[in-house]
Amino acid sequence: MKPARSFASDNNAGVHPEVITAILAANQGHAVGYGDDPYTESAVGKFKQHFGADIDVFIVFNGTAANCLSLKALTDSYHAVICTEAAHIYTDECGAPEKFTGCKLLPIPTHDGKLTVEAVEGSYHGIGDQHHVQPRVISITQATEMGTVYRPEEIKALSRFAHERSMFLHMDGARIANAAASLGLTLRQATRDLGVDVLSFGGTKNGLMGAEAVVFFDKKLSHNFQYLRKQGMQLASKMRFISVQLDCLLSNDLWLRNARHANRMAQLLQKGLSDIPEVKIVYDVEANGVFAKIPAHAIARLQVRYFFYVWNEEESVVRWMCSFDTTEEDVKRFVKFVAETIATSH
Amino acid sequence: MKPARSFASDNNAGVHPEVITAILAANQGHAVGYGDDPYTESAVGKFKQHFGADIDVFIVFNGTAANCLSLKALTDSYHAVICTEAAHIYTDECGAPEKFTGCKLLPIPTHDGKLTVEAVEGSYHGIGDQHHVQPRVISITQATEMGTVYRPEEIKALSRFAHERSMFLHMDGARIANAAASLGLTLRQATRDLGVDVLSFGGTKNGLMGAEAVVFFDKKLSHNFQYLRKQGMQLASKMRFISVQLDCLLSNDLWLRNARHANRMAQLLQKGLSDIPEVKIVYDVEANGVFAKIPAHAIARLQVRYFFYVWNEEESVVRWMCSFDTTEEDVKRFVKFVAETIATSH
Amino acid sequence: MKPARSFASDNNAGVHPEVITAILAANQGHAVGYGDDPYTESAVGKFKQHFGADIDVFIVFNGTAANCLSLKALTDSYHAVICTEAAHIYTDECGAPEKFTGCKLLPIPTHDGKLTVEAVEGSYHGIGDQHHVQPRVISITQATEMGTVYRPEEIKALSRFAHERSMFLHMDGARIANAAASLGLTLRQATRDLGVDVLSFGGTKNGLMGAEAVVFFDKKLSHNFQYLRKQGMQLASKMRFISVQLDCLLSNDLWLRNARHANRMAQLLQKGLSDIPEVKIVYDVEANGVFAKIPAHAIARLQVRYFFYVWNEEESVVRWMCSFDTTEEDVKRFVKFVAETIATSH
Amino acid sequence: MKPARSFASDNNAGVHPEVITAILAANQGHAVGYGDDPYTESAVGKFKQHFGADIDVFIVFNGTAANCLSLKALTDSYHAVICTEAAHIYTDECGAPEKFTGCKLLPIPTHDGKLTVEAVEGSYHGIGDQHHVQPRVISITQATEMGTVYRPEEIKALSRFAHERSMFLHMDGARIANAAASLGLTLRQATRDLGVDVLSFGGTKNGLMGAEAVVFFDKKLSHNFQYLRKQGMQLASKMRFISVQLDCLLSNDLWLRNARHANRMAQLLQKGLSDIPEVKIVYDVEANGVFAKIPAHAIARLQVRYFFYVWNEEESVVRWMCSFDTTEEDVKRFVKFVAETIATSH
Repeated sequence: MKPARSFASDNNAGVHPEVITAILAANQGHAVGYGDDPYTESAVGKFKQHFGADIDVFIVFNGTAANCLSLKALTDSYHAVICTEAAHIYTDECGAPEKFTGCKLLPIPTHDGKLTVEAVEGSYHGIGDQHHVQPRVISITQATEMGTVYRPEEIKALSRFAHERSMFLHMDGARIANAAASLGLTLRQATRDLGVDVLSFGGTKNGLMGAEAVVFFDKKLSHNFQYLRKQGMQLASKMRFISVQLDCLLSNDLWLRNARHANRMAQLLQKGLSDIPEVKIVYDVEANGVFAKIPAHAIARLQVRYFFYVWNEEESVVRWMCSFDTTEEDVKRFVKFVAETIATSH
Repeated sequence: MKPARSFASDNNAGVHPEVITAILAANQGHAVGYGDDPYTESAVGKFKQHFGADIDVFIVFNGTAANCLSLKALTDSYHAVICTEAAHIYTDECGAPEKFTGCKLLPIPTHDGKLTVEAVEGSYHGIGDQHHVQPRVISITQATEMGTVYRPEEIKALSRFAHERSMFLHMDGARIANAAASLGLTLRQATRDLGVDVLSFGGTKNGLMGAEAVVFFDKKLSHNFQYLRKQGMQLASKMRFISVQLDCLLSNDLWLRNARHANRMAQLLQKGLSDIPEVKIVYDVEANGVFAKIPAHAIARLQVRYFFYVWNEEESVVRWMCSFDTTEEDVKRFVKFVAETIATSH
Repeated sequence: MKPARSFASDNNAGVHPEVITAILAANQGHAVGYGDDPYTESAVGKFKQHFGADIDVFIVFNGTAANCLSLKALTDSYHAVICTEAAHIYTDECGAPEKFTGCKLLPIPTHDGKLTVEAVEGSYHGIGDQHHVQPRVISITQATEMGTVYRPEEIKALSRFAHERSMFLHMDGARIANAAASLGLTLRQATRDLGVDVLSFGGTKNGLMGAEAVVFFDKKLSHNFQYLRKQGMQLASKMRFISVQLDCLLSNDLWLRNARHANRMAQLLQKGLSDIPEVKIVYDVEANGVFAKIPAHAIARLQVRYFFYVWNEEESVVRWMCSFDTTEEDVKRFVKFVAETIATSH
Repeated sequence: MKPARSFASDNNAGVHPEVITAILAANQGHAVGYGDDPYTESAVGKFKQHFGADIDVFIVFNGTAANCLSLKALTDSYHAVICTEAAHIYTDECGAPEKFTGCKLLPIPTHDGKLTVEAVEGSYHGIGDQHHVQPRVISITQATEMGTVYRPEEIKALSRFAHERSMFLHMDGARIANAAASLGLTLRQATRDLGVDVLSFGGTKNGLMGAEAVVFFDKKLSHNFQYLRKQGMQLASKMRFISVQLDCLLSNDLWLRNARHANRMAQLLQKGLSDIPEVKIVYDVEANGVFAKIPAHAIARLQVRYFFYVWNEEESVVRWMCSFDTTEEDVKRFVKFVAETIATSH
């Protein structure tokens, strides 16, 4: 029998009970559609408590949309977006950023999923040359797709580099809560205070049913975003049911509790795996993901019981993610299964 | 005090209790993301029960997306889409269809929101002329934006016209349940059997939290739709929570019960209003909406208590929609309020 | 035998001898590509002589591009462009404006091809409503597609209306020379001085081989146009050979001589046709085009010898255009042929 | 005094005298616009003589357009195009391919500008995965941007790889004449016979004023290209003046004479430079371009007299191109100047 919880992705988890309660509470009577409701107003208020009053927040359905709409708000079609080769916007959104913005994405290879000023510099060229796309946005993912976490000074250096060149810093924060928890920072300290201009704020992977937001730290950048959201097919009619999820996440430290727990489970998983000689952790475990090089012949046998993704087939690297609902028992049972499977496969 | 339920829009209503129950039931353990889960499989199975086994179904977040993605699947960028001037795709989607497909929409003025073969013929020209966009899709809304309902033979005539010219018939079925209930037809009889090629199947306005689907009646048309959905930013990660809503709607006749009830409330509303001499019903009430010409000076006073939309400011026509949760008591109280407000305003 | 010159279109004419001479003169040695050459510099200088020094000029290949790139410079994707139903951008560019800008075009039916403030007002709505495209540009064609010419005060009224609402006035000036000649105005008086913000300046129909320009009367609007032109596939490598054409057209009043002549030939044509009772001129002949309602049965017989376009099949209206190279003899022979053909057909 | 002819680019050259003669000859009387003229018919006939009768040819203004329109004809928006990092479509078209097609371009680093099957294999992944763009086209440049030339068997291997995977092979043939001349092949042998599906046929760099063509070797791929060309703003009204250039180029071996000459001048230039110890040729000189690593301090001093482009600033590599009109005297004088300048700079 398959276990109830896998380590495939934090989006395989369900919805946190507090969020369910919030959704049920919002199902009372009628509410005006398209965001003009008290639940959305309250959620936006929560964002302002966390990030400061002078921000603009727009709720959208999913992370791909949060990213693509953010980029569209910052660019014209001849601009370019600098990102890593492993960036979700570059590899996992089926070309949605290019399609929606018209821009070229300039991919930079990295070892750990993190851009550096040095690497970005190499893609910053052709400025003022009509034949070349014009770099306009640096987009980073925090925590990264490799489960690593940028240090505050690394982000500050990137935002400084960007702003000195009339560029913007966008953060794909699908797992910003995990990163902030890992760094011991508030959400604001982990984003706005480091010079991030626009944040894709992730909720779905942190215990929500499905809710993300685009947060603008400079309201001049968002003056027309309501139209981009609608034209981008991301304006929910019964928005209250999405808004309450984010409201709940930003209340009573739920974002932090969930993220901290998932991060701790990843540490536990790493620790357990470190006792298996054939398993090699390949990236620093700084958020809720563990990337491990394992014997190739074990992969299929592990997947019989646990569904998960192979990150790099050639290198035999797999990705295991922990969620808000992962239990210590889950981790122990999984580590045990990995150890046994590897031991018995050849 | 504002009443719990307004007549502003069927999307101002909440979520049907059976749907809530279904959502809660789906919140068990982990499920693979992006639609590869048993809840989505079950929902797709329900669609097949209703529409036939040889179809393709893709679940999306909202109606605008269902429409735009449908049109993209049927067109290349130099094509044109024929629709009414009042069509949701033409007036209420902030240009999303043009942006996502590149196509021109050819608007046709109508009295009652319904296209006719005669009217469409006037927009079908320039065929083979490289200077002209090439008509490729006729898009109709059922029930229409004016609350009227196409008769089966009217749709058949349009699909015949389309197919004879290598065009497709798309139906924006945001309120297809209300239309089918009104016509006394099954969902299949009201769509596929009339020659519709692709259907935007609406759930949100009929008691769901937020769930729509694109239904292809010819699987050749959908071979690449999974990529269009992702590129269109409409692939839900925790899809099970959207799928179960549609599964529930298509079970135990919930779609029909909800739609029938909303339609009946609209009849009741119409009947009540017909006793107020200053109120004139302007379109046939065939689904769940009532469009009424009322004294201009009464509008603002009515809106003090009941939020609703003015459909046509110059003509002083307002739109009142009934929902699955509208009660007879709601209708009576509203009619009474309308009568009193008109009587006392001048 | 077919005559050497038809009345089908002013773009069926060849190249004016002075332009040929200029092209030959430019074919000396090497010149830097992409516009950084002395011929382009000189052409831009000529534009500044005509329109004022504080403008920006960008040379492009054809009129469709001049229009689409102009509109892109003035809009974001959720904007709308108000134009007539007969506008070239609406009916004759195969959806290029929608494809390149993402915008919706809002067509207004007219009798004579001319927008009025009153008509535009009806399309100016939904401002600030996130569901609606936001009107951003009024685009007029001067001379119009019907051969009529806006009066200066008509254009001033439209530009005032636009500017009071933060909109722009774009002029498709494919035949601006004919209009200016008709009005007895300089090029500047006929455009910039009336409040036009961006002009598609037409050369091809007025005796060039193929050369158009986008002229910005406010340099803030053009700051990034060089990228839009390249991204729009309109940056000529050997630009000198296009620039010299425009340089020549703007020298020694060639633009005016050519336009005046074509206009005069149209007057002559109209006069000649007025003696044929079965022929009815349907629009005021104010530039170089004559639109005539003629017996339907004569059309095909006329086309045996003279190629031309039927403007409105149902109404049996045809379009006859005069060019810089149309001769009085051409007109006389054509009128005679029309008279005889009509007399002998039935 | 600056010399009449530089080595900056083959598009800095003027127009070949035979082409001028052809243009003048076409300036007789009226001709129907938009390609329905005898000159275009003749040019298309010439293409068929060279490439086979069962092809489709579409004339466009410039090379960027030939490339972008080719790619659009072969793709839907979720597809990907595999090319080199140095490809013109990737680096020199200001994002036009992404904007016009919506596709992602997948860049592959190379040493010599040539793709290999091995390199392409690494980018061919994610097939059938809805999160990933789907590789659809391999685009190669022949001769390459580095002045190298694919061997026939290299192209055959790429086309075989592509076709076995339902992909297409596109060739950016801005300098296809130089490549064919270099290989001693006919135009057909150098393209179609190697499995190329669609060719951007370049004329401008080989002595024309400005004329390129998209050649389809499979007519099924071009069934709707006329609309894409118009929507892509690439339909010339007075097309005859573009068509005659291509007609002339494909007559009397002009394409071959021009290309052979330019190639020979590049050989001469290489030979001359090889006597300068400080100059190192960095790529094989196989077409009409010479890439040389020279002392950094000499660059600016050389550019005082000769305008040219620095190919790689860090490596101090410059690009020198020969044209149809480059003379032996030009080469000798230039080599002498390079030698002297390097000798006297430090």
